[in-house]
Amino acid sequence: MTDENNNPLFFRRILITIDEDDRPSTSRAFRFAMTMARDYQAHLGIASVMENNDISIYESLMPAKLNERRDHLKRIVATYAEQAKDFGVEQVRSIVAEGGDVDDVVLDKIVPDFEPDLIVCGADVDFASHGRPGAIGLRLAKKSTTSVIVIR
Amino acid sequence: MTDENNNPLFFRRILITIDEDDRPSTSRAFRFAMTMARDYQAHLGIASVMENNDISIYESLMPAKLNERRDHLKRIVATYAEQAKDFGVEQVRSIVAEGGDVDDVVLDKIVPDFEPDLIVCGADVDFASHGRPGAIGLRLAKKSTTSVIVIR
Repeated sequence: MTDENNNPLFFRRILITIDEDDRPSTSRAFRFAMTMARDYQAHLGIASVMENNDISIYESLMPAKLNERRDHLKRIVATYAEQAKDFGVEQVRSIVAEGGDVDDVVLDKIVPDFEPDLIVCGADVDFASHGRPGAIGLRLAKKSTTSVIVIR
Repeated sequence: MTDENNNPLFFRRILITIDEDDRPSTSRAFRFAMTMARDYQAHLGIASVMENNDISIYESLMPAKLNERRDHLKRIVATYAEQAKDFGVEQVRSIVAEGGDVDDVVLDKIVPDFEPDLIVCGADVDFASHGRPGAIGLRLAKKSTTSVIVIR
């Protein structure tokens, strides 16, 4: 075996996708992401997606309502970011994006921007309104060109 | 948030599934598994599966041939185990199993015995003869009740 095969392998840019709802696996996934980011001095991106499918026609006609939802999601992500900093993670970025399917938004918008080498996702993160339940992490694991961990 | 949400989360029993062929993602997956096991003093199980589908009728009538294949796989796993010990992992177990589909053997035989809290798999581990290519890790991620990381 070559020497390279004996080098440690860990991640330097960790992206965690969080759900608006506080599912048990989100909490465990977040704890894992924080632990890795702290212990290996990695950058931690904390991302959440506002799905357009979630937006009713009523809301879409009311910019104030949309802003309210956006602000709500930003506050949730900011809370996670604060928690990560308190935990000891030095490089934290909050990311809030919008679009169609969560997995597409993550792969097409967030990943090209943040350039993670690991995506962390709780197994039961599925975004309440999502047509295909319970499998954001699995769909990311399938479609992503970076490593993905599905936490249970 | 409760205090528990601020506890580090890492894994104590890491199972890596290796392919007989030395695929690039196996090497990276193995390096990650070794790194985690060394840095968090976790148990490392190194597993490979001899698929019955791989066995020709000719071989199945020749016990010596089967033993030869079994020994070949055992030597491969033992080489990985030695590498892990040299790397600094203290608790290493070699596991060689046999059966039908790799993912079923891993989930039905190896997991109940080793009881991992993380399964590590390279993204392109698919076992040469396997009917459904390239997706052992994804199938494990889908079916497993423990956390799974798919390394690319």
